[in-house]
Amino acid sequence: MSLLIIGTVAFDAIETPFGKTDKIVGGSATYVGYSAAKLGVNPKLVAVVGDDFPTETINDLKNAGFDLEGLQVKKEEKTFFWSGKYHNDMNSRDTLITELNVLESFNPVIPDSYQDCTYLMLGNLAPALQTQVINSLKNRPKLIAMDTMDFWMDIAMDDLKEAISKVDVLTINDEEARQLSGEYSLLTAAEKIQSMGPRYLIIKKGEHGALLFHGKEMFYAPALPLAFVKDPTGAGDTFAGGFMGYLASTDDVSFENMKRAVVYGSALASFTVEEFGTDNIKAVTQKDLEARMDAFKALMSFKH
Amino acid sequence: MSLLIIGTVAFDAIETPFGKTDKIVGGSATYVGYSAAKLGVNPKLVAVVGDDFPTETINDLKNAGFDLEGLQVKKEEKTFFWSGKYHNDMNSRDTLITELNVLESFNPVIPDSYQDCTYLMLGNLAPALQTQVINSLKNRPKLIAMDTMDFWMDIAMDDLKEAISKVDVLTINDEEARQLSGEYSLLTAAEKIQSMGPRYLIIKKGEHGALLFHGKEMFYAPALPLAFVKDPTGAGDTFAGGFMGYLASTDDVSFENMKRAVVYGSALASFTVEEFGTDNIKAVTQKDLEARMDAFKALMSFKH
Repeated sequence: MSLLIIGTVAFDAIETPFGKTDKIVGGSATYVGYSAAKLGVNPKLVAVVGDDFPTETINDLKNAGFDLEGLQVKKEEKTFFWSGKYHNDMNSRDTLITELNVLESFNPVIPDSYQDCTYLMLGNLAPALQTQVINSLKNRPKLIAMDTMDFWMDIAMDDLKEAISKVDVLTINDEEARQLSGEYSLLTAAEKIQSMGPRYLIIKKGEHGALLFHGKEMFYAPALPLAFVKDPTGAGDTFAGGFMGYLASTDDVSFENMKRAVVYGSALASFTVEEFGTDNIKAVTQKDLEARMDAFKALMSFKH
Repeated sequence: MSLLIIGTVAFDAIETPFGKTDKIVGGSATYVGYSAAKLGVNPKLVAVVGDDFPTETINDLKNAGFDLEGLQVKKEEKTFFWSGKYHNDMNSRDTLITELNVLESFNPVIPDSYQDCTYLMLGNLAPALQTQVINSLKNRPKLIAMDTMDFWMDIAMDDLKEAISKVDVLTINDEEARQLSGEYSLLTAAEKIQSMGPRYLIIKKGEHGALLFHGKEMFYAPALPLAFVKDPTGAGDTFAGGFMGYLASTDDVSFENMKRAVVYGSALASFTVEEFGTDNIKAVTQKDLEARMDAFKALMSFKH
C-alpha cells in the first residue's frame, strides 16, 4: 500500500567521538523514506529544499523509489541546515547550528496523486504543520504515525497535543515520554499518552531498544549490540521508516504484525548508526536485512 | 542440584524518591538465596553476621529453605551495615554509611557438608575472598558465577582479575563492563572480558534489562516495565539468584537453558524492586512467578 511521508530533507554537519562530517544529506523524511523503501514501498514525499540541494541526491531518492511530486524546490533559497555534536556516550548531543532557511515558510502541499495514501508518517516537524497535513487529506489514512521531539514540548505544547490527538501511533524517546506525561514510570507514561489520542505508543530508548504499547499489550525490541556506533543521527527516523514501511507493505495493522514492524525498524536503524549519514541505509540489501532480522530473532528468542 | 552462595548478609538503610527505611535486612547473599529458593533449591549459605542479627530473620532464612551451617554468628560483634540514597532516576546512588563490622575480619569457611556443591554463586564481596572460596573447594563446581562492582575495580583490580579468571559466569553492570574492559561498545567489551576467563558474561542494565554473551552468541532479556519501582537495592542479586537457582534446579548449563535462566532472574528481580527490602521476593509464590514469566514471554515474542 502507499506510504506518504512528510518531514525534513536537510543538510547535516555532525561530530561524534568517531569523526566529523562536512555538510552531508540528512533530514527526517530522507531517513524515513530510504528505510521504508527497503520494505518495498515507494514513499510519496512531501518536503522542501532550496536550489542548493544536489541534483545527484534528487536522483538517488528517485532511484531508491521515492515519489518526489510533493518535493518543493525553492529557487534562490537554501536548504535547512543542522549541525550537532554528540557527547561521549552518544546518547546526548548539543545543537551547534540550526539554519531553518526554506523551512521558515514551509507550506506542505499534498499533490492530488498522493490523496489516496493509506499510511501516513509525519516526521519530526512543527506540530502545526503535522496537523495541517492531516487536515489536508480528503480521506483519513488507515494508519497515521507521528514522530516529534522535546523541542516542540518546550515551545509549542498546545499545538503538539492537538497533533498527537489526531494520530494512531506516536514515536518518542524515553525522556520525551516522561516530559510529555509527567510520569517517570514508562508504563504509567504510556497509559497517559495513549489517553491523549494515540492507540499505539512507541518509546525509543536508543541503544536500549524500543517499547511498543497498545492498551494492556506491550512488546520490547532490543537494539542489536554493535561493535561500532559511529553516528546515531537518523536512527529514530530509520526506525520509523522501517516500522511504517513494513506495515504499509504488508497492509496489516494487527498488534502481532506491529511487533514484527518494530523489529524491522530496529534492524534497519542498526545499519544507519554504523556509519555517518545515509550511506549505510541506502546500501542495505534484502540479504543484509534478512540476516540482521535473524540476528534479532536469535537475540530475543527463548523457549519457556 | 546444590547451590552454594557466598556473600553479605547485612543491614541496609535506604532512601529513594519513594520513601525511606530504618535498618532492614539486606545483603547480596540474602537476596541471592531468597531468589534461588523460589526455583526449588536449598541454598547453602556462607556468610557472617554479628549477634545483633535478629533471630526472627534467621528463622525466616531457614523457613525459606536456606542451609545455614556456613553462617557464622560473631559474638559481641555487629552486622555489616550499609546506607544509601538513590537519585531521582533510580539508576545511580550515593553511599551514605558503610560500617564493615564483622566483614572486616571475615574468613569464609566451607563446611564439609557443602563440599559436594555443584553450583557456586560468589556474591559481591572482596575479590580475594571470592578466590579463597574457590580454592577452598576440594572439587571444582560444575558452574561458578561471580558478581562484583566498580568499587573493587577502583581499589583491588589485580585481585579482581584473578578471581574473574577462575569463574565461568561474570555478572556486572554496563558501566562496570566498560570500566573493566576499557571498551565503550558492550559487544567489544564482552569479547575482552570473556578473554579474561569467564566463558559467559551477563551485563546488567537495570531498567533496560540484561545481556548474556557466550562466544558469538548473545541473548537479551528486557526488564519488565513496571508502574512502581520503589527500591532497586538487591535487584542484581535477586537476578543472579534466579539465574543460578534455575540452572541448579534444572542442572542444565546449555546456552538455551541459560537464556531461560536469565529470564527467570529478570522476572524475580522485577518483584524485588517493587518494594523496599526483601519482603517482596520472600512472598513470591510459584503462581506469581509463572504469571510474570508469561508476561516476559509476551513482551519478547514475535513471529518472523
